[in-house]
This record gives sequence, structure tokens and C-alpha cells, in this order.
Amino acid sequence: MIDQSRILQPGDTIGILGGGQLARMLALAAATFGLKTHIYAPDGDNPAFDVAAHCTTAAYDDADALARFAQAVQVVTYEFENVPAATVANLARHCPVRPSGHALATTQDRLIEKRFLRDLGLPTAPFAPVDALEDLKQAVEAIGRPSILKTRRFGYDGKGQIAIHQQDALEAVHRDLNAPAILEGFVRFSREVSVVAARGTDGTFRAFDLCENHHSRHILATTVVPARVSPEIETEAAAMTQRIAEALDYVGVLAVEMFVVPGKDGVETLCVNEIAPRVHNSGHWTIDGAVTSQFAQHVRATCGWPLGSTQRFGTVHMQNLIGEEADGWQALMAAEGACVHLYGKAESRPGRKMGHVTTVTVPSR
Amino acid sequence: MIDQSRILQPGDTIGILGGGQLARMLALAAATFGLKTHIYAPDGDNPAFDVAAHCTTAAYDDADALARFAQAVQVVTYEFENVPAATVANLARHCPVRPSGHALATTQDRLIEKRFLRDLGLPTAPFAPVDALEDLKQAVEAIGRPSILKTRRFGYDGKGQIAIHQQDALEAVHRDLNAPAILEGFVRFSREVSVVAARGTDGTFRAFDLCENHHSRHILATTVVPARVSPEIETEAAAMTQRIAEALDYVGVLAVEMFVVPGKDGVETLCVNEIAPRVHNSGHWTIDGAVTSQFAQHVRATCGWPLGSTQRFGTVHMQNLIGEEADGWQALMAAEGACVHLYGKAESRPGRKMGHVTTVTVPSR
Repeated sequence: MIDQSRILQPGDTIGILGGGQLARMLALAAATFGLKTHIYAPDGDNPAFDVAAHCTTAAYDDADALARFAQAVQVVTYEFENVPAATVANLARHCPVRPSGHALATTQDRLIEKRFLRDLGLPTAPFAPVDALEDLKQAVEAIGRPSILKTRRFGYDGKGQIAIHQQDALEAVHRDLNAPAILEGFVRFSREVSVVAARGTDGTFRAFDLCENHHSRHILATTVVPARVSPEIETEAAAMTQRIAEALDYVGVLAVEMFVVPGKDGVETLCVNEIAPRVHNSGHWTIDGAVTSQFAQHVRATCGWPLGSTQRFGTVHMQNLIGEEADGWQALMAAEGACVHLYGKAESRPGRKMGHVTTVTVPSR
Repeated sequence: MIDQSRILQPGDTIGILGGGQLARMLALAAATFGLKTHIYAPDGDNPAFDVAAHCTTAAYDDADALARFAQAVQVVTYEFENVPAATVANLARHCPVRPSGHALATTQDRLIEKRFLRDLGLPTAPFAPVDALEDLKQAVEAIGRPSILKTRRFGYDGKGQIAIHQQDALEAVHRDLNAPAILEGFVRFSREVSVVAARGTDGTFRAFDLCENHHSRHILATTVVPARVSPEIETEAAAMTQRIAEALDYVGVLAVEMFVVPGKDGVETLCVNEIAPRVHNSGHWTIDGAVTSQFAQHVRATCGWPLGSTQRFGTVHMQNLIGEEADGWQALMAAEGACVHLYGKAESRPGRKMGHVTTVTVPSR
């Protein structure tokens, strides 16, 4: 039996599934604690390989490679939620996997996730499962228009989503998506926010300050902290996230995206959009703007160590560099106070996250 | 001919001589800019290897290995000053070396360094060269006791130093040191401080806030910032460092250690102790306590990029973890607000720098 409560020692190795920028920033954080990292990723552009002590290039369904990987590390974590359940089950036979396969299974399927949230009593958009065209017709009847049809799995940055407006023919929409899906009601929100938080193996929970997010073409463009919401909303958002983390018996950093919804009486409420069972783009500001970064926090939790302070140093602005925006790195590097992060990706493509820039404005003394 | 003004691009590779904790932290900083690193170090415990894209294990006088290394990178820098001059000359035939061999030659020999400082008009302890026993006798006659005999080269953390007190027999002292040396007068100081600063390829100079340093058994124990000195002393210390950097046509981060000397009239003055042509232990607080870390700053300078902001986030305390002090990592990790850094060294030995812990106290708003 694997000791699921294993505590890592400096010098131990964290295994990370995925070789992108999140894995890269996790590896950099792990190194500050004297840990080694072993990155496991399929063939491709894997910028995390450049900062890791060990790398495995193999498919996520290569049982032999997975077993060798799990035996070479003391704990496994991941940079993205679309790890097959069988992969995690295979790994978990050899070493602790944090967060657990249960947390992954709950959050990698929009329908399971929405039902989990509803069962917790947390507010979400109205939703209904859609497999066949008939389901879609019934769902639109119940939920109304506009609404959004989303694939249950593998969606990110607006991929796998189709908005359904008044005039849209449902046959065409259903043909275009062509995958197990979920119809969600359209939420008229005033702001998008996210809670980036962590839960340790001892059950300790800590949230970073609430992030206010602005998207462009379905991709996160900027995050500002503090979010312009009431203290009550900020407290409620963290409390909801804690309920989610506890219900999942979660270990590590997670992010919960929420909408701030204006009420008729002027009182705002929250509506949970989705859960990311991993470090999150809207938490990148913590590298430069908080005592502990979300990456260091995830490493602490993954190792079974105490969580670090989430204290923020000032007012923070984080701008994503998407595609060719990163070509302007020289001007960004010259901007006073700019903390420029580039991910070491070999190729810039439209919509690809190439880096980000954070500025921290410290209150005058 | 090598283009000495070369500007690196993200994706390029920085070559670093030396594989210890300074090289490791430089490699981590380089990675945040999308750069690769190639570490060159002799066989041994090289914790920087674990975070670098490429590694070469070879001696510093292996001309073939050096040439291959220099051809595989776009710029070379180093983590320590005892790189042989011939090594740097060899490398410089293939690619820019920053800081230059001239800066290295000036600062790796205490006698050349002291004469350089004197010629700049900067205050130092009285000094005299000592080769033979007769030199030592004359030097002690001129400088007095107590004084300190130091090897001209390869000294660090108090190694290669012997204090000469009233009763000491000079014959024994000279026999014990047995290397080209320098006698320095003893400076009665009230504080030890250091300026960690950078100069870019464009001549821009930026100093971090003055560091106040406390040593234990000749090894840095703690650094606190701000240093408890007058604004005039802080300004003067930075100005002296700028004169040194400009006189050396320096590129990169350097540290200048100084003594604060109380005057009879209550006015304090500064006395320059030594120059480190590299990132410096007393600047480790900048990783957590400043907008730009000394490592990121050195990378910026080394790449020919603009320097970053040196703004500090709060009151900073940095504690070194020497030898078995690092065994207490679990308690340190649990301390509220502690940023724990462990260097990934395979073996803890007495006097060995194993890590450090920084706390940043942010002013209440």
C-alpha cells in the first residue's frame, strides 16, 4: 500500500504530468525548496523540460512509462485537468497523486462538476445534459435563450463552446458540437472573478486575494487585484471555494471561477462558473505580488508541508502575452516596474499563451 | 570578431561557469525570461545542474570543453570570481563574457583590488603587499597591530585569513599562510554593510537598498534591509559602488562590502572592504523582497537588456542556513511569512551554505 500521507523531504522528486508553462513554473518553484522535478509529457513543445532534473517523453496511456515514472518520484501532480482517469489510477498504485483522481474526475467533466456544485448548494447557471438533439431541444425549452452549449470534457479558453441565440437552428448547433455536452443558461454578470486557493494535507485552507479577470476572445487578458467587489463578496467567494476544496478532500492549489451578478436590489451575488483543479492563469500575479506564489503554495501542499503566507505586496496588474504580443518583449522589459515572464515556447501561434507581465504598485509609506 | 554588444533574445542560452547555489538561482531567474541555461562546472555536487537545459562537467582549464561550451551559448557569465584569467580569455574568443575578464582580474586579487580602490580615491583599510617574511615585518611595523594577513587570491568566508594580535610571532603567521598575501589594518567599525547593484551594457546603474550584514564565524549569518545608517551614508555607499562599476566598465550585478566607521565627531564614514564581481549572498533577500531579484537583474544585464526596478516591498530579514541549520527546515517552513530557500545540495557539511530564509514585513496600510 502507498502511504497517502507521505511527507516529502528536500532532495526528493516531484513528478509533474504535462510539460507546458504551468509545469515549468511549478518546477521553478519546487527548485527553490531544494526539490527535483521529473516532467512527464507527450512528444511536443515542452518548455518545462528545460528546467527539470528528469524528463520522460511518453503518451498518457503508456502504462509501462507511467509505472517507471511513478517509481522514480515521491509524489505526482499535474499541470492540467485532462489527465485520463486510468492514468491517475495507474500512477496511484505506485505513489501519492495530489490532488486525487476523485478531484480530477469531478472537475474534468462539466456535467459532473455542475451536479457536484448543485449538491453542495452553491449557485450555478441553470444547466442540463445534452447527448442527442432531442435533449438539446428540451434543454433550450427549459433554460431559454441565449444559452451556451459546451462539451462536457476537454474545453478550455472558449474551445468546445457554442452560444445559442434567438435565431440559431438547434440542428446546426448540435451538429457542430457533436460530443457529450451540457447546456448552460447565460449569466448576466457585472464582473468575472476567481479565487485561487490551496488546501494542505492537514486540511488547512488558504485563499489568495480575489482576482478580477478580463477576457478577450475567451482567453484571459488581464487580472487585477484587489477585485472591485464588496468585502462581503470577497469573503463569500473564499468561503465557497473552501467548501468545494473540503468536499473534494482536495490537496494542492485550485481555482474557482465565478461571476458577480448584480441584483435588482443593488446587492451583488456570486455564481460559480467552473473549477480548475490546478494552478491557474489568474494566479500568476502571486509570483511577484505575494509572499508565496501559487506555484510555491502548490508545491508546499503537494509535499505535505504547511501552506505559506498569501499576503499581497500591493495593487497588482497582470497582463497575458498572447501569440504575437510576446514579440513586444523588449518594450515590456523596459517598462518601469514590469516583471516580465516568458515561457520559453519554441513557436508563437495565435491564441497561444507565450508569457505574462505583472506590475505591483506598492502603497506609499 | 565577437560582437561584444550582443543582445540576447528569449530562447537564447546563457552559459554559467560554476554549478553551486548562485548558478542555480541565476538559472531559475533566466528561465523566467524564457532563456535556457548551460552550466559548466568541474565534477562534484552541482545543484545548478538540476534546473539547467544543458550541463558540461569539465575542468576550468579544459580548453576543448570550454570552446565547445562557448560555441553553444550566446553569452557567458559566472557565479564566482576565482575563474582563471586564461579560462575567460579562451571563452572571450568565442562569445561575450559579462562581466569582463578585466573586472574579474581586478577583483580576484586583493592587492590589485585595493590598489584599484585607492587609485579611485575610495577609502580602504591601510594595506601592504606581503610575499616574504621580511615584507610582513615591515608591513606590521607600518600598519600596526591588530591587523589581518590575507591571501591575495581564493579567499572567501574568512578562509585564507589570519589575525595578527599583539603577542603573535610573525614567523608562525607567515609560515601558516604561505601564499602571496596582503596585510590589512584592522578597521574598528560599527556596522558591516553591502551595496548590491547592477550596471547594464548601456551604462545604466541601479543599486538595491543598502544591506546591513551580520557575520558569525566569518560567514554571513543575517542581512537586514533597510540598514540602520543615515540617508547620507546610504547615498554615499551607492555612489562609491557606481564609481567602482564605471571604472571597471562593469556589466552585471556586483556587490561591494563596506564598513561603517564611527568618527570622533559622531559623523560616520565608509571604508570599502571588498568587491564581489557577481551576485552576492547579502542580496538574496531581493528574490522575495524586491520587484526585481539580483538574479533577474544580473540576467537582464548579461543579456544586454534594460535593468529592472530595485523597489523594495517592505522591511526585510534574511537568515542564512549554514550546515545543520538546514535540518530545521520543517519548523522554518511552518513559520508565518517565511520564504524558505533550499539549494538542493546533496550533503550538509559544517560551514556549508545550504539555504536561506527571508521574511518581508509589509508596512500596514
